[in-house]
Amino acid sequence: MTTYLEANKQRFLDELLELLRIPSVSADSKFKGDVRRAAEFVREKLTAAGLDKAQLYETPGHPVVYAEKIVDPARPTVLVYGHYDVQPADPYELWQSPPFEPTIRNERIYARGACDDKGQFYMHIKAIEAMVATDGLPCNVKVMIEGEEEVGSDHLGTFVAEHRDMLKADVILISDTSIISNETPSLETGLRGLSYVEVEVTGPNRDLHSGVYGGGVANPINVLCEMIASLHDENGRITIPGFYDNVADLSEAERNELAKAPFDLDEYKKDLGINDVMGEAGYSTNERTSIRPTLDVNGIWGGYTGEGAKTVLPSKASAKISMRLVPNQTPEEITDLFTKHFRAIAPAGVTVKVMPHHGGLPYVTPTDSVEFEAASKAFEDAWGKKPIPTRGGGSIPIVALFERELGIKSILMGFGLDSDALHSPNESYGLFNFYKGIETIPYFYKNYAALKQ
Amino acid sequence: MTTYLEANKQRFLDELLELLRIPSVSADSKFKGDVRRAAEFVREKLTAAGLDKAQLYETPGHPVVYAEKIVDPARPTVLVYGHYDVQPADPYELWQSPPFEPTIRNERIYARGACDDKGQFYMHIKAIEAMVATDGLPCNVKVMIEGEEEVGSDHLGTFVAEHRDMLKADVILISDTSIISNETPSLETGLRGLSYVEVEVTGPNRDLHSGVYGGGVANPINVLCEMIASLHDENGRITIPGFYDNVADLSEAERNELAKAPFDLDEYKKDLGINDVMGEAGYSTNERTSIRPTLDVNGIWGGYTGEGAKTVLPSKASAKISMRLVPNQTPEEITDLFTKHFRAIAPAGVTVKVMPHHGGLPYVTPTDSVEFEAASKAFEDAWGKKPIPTRGGGSIPIVALFERELGIKSILMGFGLDSDALHSPNESYGLFNFYKGIETIPYFYKNYAALKQ
Repeated sequence: MTTYLEANKQRFLDELLELLRIPSVSADSKFKGDVRRAAEFVREKLTAAGLDKAQLYETPGHPVVYAEKIVDPARPTVLVYGHYDVQPADPYELWQSPPFEPTIRNERIYARGACDDKGQFYMHIKAIEAMVATDGLPCNVKVMIEGEEEVGSDHLGTFVAEHRDMLKADVILISDTSIISNETPSLETGLRGLSYVEVEVTGPNRDLHSGVYGGGVANPINVLCEMIASLHDENGRITIPGFYDNVADLSEAERNELAKAPFDLDEYKKDLGINDVMGEAGYSTNERTSIRPTLDVNGIWGGYTGEGAKTVLPSKASAKISMRLVPNQTPEEITDLFTKHFRAIAPAGVTVKVMPHHGGLPYVTPTDSVEFEAASKAFEDAWGKKPIPTRGGGSIPIVALFERELGIKSILMGFGLDSDALHSPNESYGLFNFYKGIETIPYFYKNYAALKQ
Repeated sequence: MTTYLEANKQRFLDELLELLRIPSVSADSKFKGDVRRAAEFVREKLTAAGLDKAQLYETPGHPVVYAEKIVDPARPTVLVYGHYDVQPADPYELWQSPPFEPTIRNERIYARGACDDKGQFYMHIKAIEAMVATDGLPCNVKVMIEGEEEVGSDHLGTFVAEHRDMLKADVILISDTSIISNETPSLETGLRGLSYVEVEVTGPNRDLHSGVYGGGVANPINVLCEMIASLHDENGRITIPGFYDNVADLSEAERNELAKAPFDLDEYKKDLGINDVMGEAGYSTNERTSIRPTLDVNGIWGGYTGEGAKTVLPSKASAKISMRLVPNQTPEEITDLFTKHFRAIAPAGVTVKVMPHHGGLPYVTPTDSVEFEAASKAFEDAWGKKPIPTRGGGSIPIVALFERELGIKSILMGFGLDSDALHSPNESYGLFNFYKGIETIPYFYKNYAALKQ
């Protein structure tokens, strides 16, 4: 195994770089063709890795790529999930090297999707290739790589429901999360859910001269700002009635357990270039970004945003707002509460539209399972260290869906770092993490097969 | 005179349409060449109208066009001021016909600048042409048409200071304001001043994943919204310390005088498509838009504003904010108060930049002067009605500057309507107003010459 990995190192990297050159941005329809090219690329590589039945499954959106290798029906089956689509790359001007021209700098791969999730799911394809090519697969393996994760996996739910038998497995293995550091491996035991809405505030039926009408009619931008500002109170708590009703509070013991994860606030602030952190009173930064729900404006626009000064009182103002959810909140519930509240606080003189984008359920994975043990041991085998259990702040909506539709738990065996700048300009993935992941994954199969006997 | 105007009606209109086809947007550098073309056009027409010394005067920005006709040094001199530059035309998609392809629909000229200010200053050139071609000019006339009014007339101050002798006059005549309606002519006796700033709020040094960091660090958009929201209190008053200190409150008598202007709130709301008006408690809509200072966000932007959903916690958020000023506020004072206050309310976790754009002083014109009488009588002569004195909400910063630099008062003899959609898509100017203006202006010269004897 080690020899094989060593011998093929450069090719593994070259293949990933080839995949990273495809701008498979699922959110923007003008990249539709590129998204499909990425899917084709994945299908080829699955076949090349020695998997059977590799093919594209059409959906109303972007296709799902699937392949499998059943070595022995008696052995446990691992279902690998990942996504070949990426976040939009703008603002382009902030990239030191073009987002879709992967560049290696100081031992890191810089490109949109380098870590999220091309770099991470591709480790699995290469790990499988290595197992097939050397000692053989200890477990049956099924691989499902989708193209709509960054836009809410809208069609994967139907796909999964329609292919329950094909996707039957004992565990789902996902690398789309991060570790604490290259010195301190960790395993995420939970994810936040997501409710994402777009709002539009309309005042006058046309843009107005701010001199002739200014002061006399509601300005949609000022109103939108007031409405958004009112969504948090002075303690950083969200003011939407009922928002916290279903939030599962952690016990002191659980909070103490999470608090064990090494965290350096000064380092954190220094990395982000901020003089202070901000958030819900009564919780640590780690808690605010993992076990507590949030509300963030992801985008806002309205009026004149060009060069110079235009004295306009605009007709409309809009914002994209997302809420991260924790157990036991549901996107349906929260989106509904948000919509009702946002409409309710709209002052006279404006009308408000709320358009839900996509959502996802929060998820918690049990740490006392054979699957978690196999993953934990895999890190010990490859890193010589027991991974620390953490709770992640991000969302992989599909994980909760898998549990509901397939009754299978997911293991979040991610190898990225929070500093990889996911969703940001200059996203990167460490060569160390890429290779170390490929090395760690086969241990999971080995351990899992052994533990399931 | 009447015969001449009748005989040349169509040509007057055709010439205006030709001018309106030139996209002389002063705020956007990509239109620099077009702005110059508009200046050249004006110079030619001034010569054609029978004026002398028509030429372009270069400035660090766009050129000033000037021409004059001294018929008799003993007679009073009228200085006509206008601007050939226009506001940006976006959003283009909201125009029923392209902004720079003037179209006549139901007796109105639709085009950017149709009223503000091409349609209005061009009436003067045609009125002068008619006087010269018929009974001759009753007064000496000087015409100064600038190209930077929509961006704050940054360089006109220097130009005026450097050409005091050339610009020496007894009164300045400006058509860049509106009348109450075509049935109710009015003369504006005051204008609001302007302070225009651009603000930028910076949080983390890069765009962040809203899942990984959301809830833990200040989101610049949320913070900007909170800061903007805090600039008004629940009574619609501006909260900037000292903002109202120099505001000259009107006497009950003055307020009652202004209240005489016909105003139909239902019509107003219907025209704007709003279910209610909004503004400072204790003042009427007309007062809120004329004798009271305001603060409006003219543009806001930050984060992801493209198609679909991007879960980003952006590094920066920005806004363009303008304040309309009334006597005796000054742009310097207010911009300074705003900057200090906005910096002061910035929470930890963000840094704030405030960049002043341009400003202008408010202005009040005396209604007991010979000049006002000549203008008032001109309306009576042409419209058969005495014009109602009103206070305008817009700003013509240069008017206050003229008084300071040249010691000359301005007469605001505008012929537009508030419904002309200045600064908005589908700006228009009535053919009635265009022709009626050309008819009214010569009466001013006649009356003024008579009154000054």
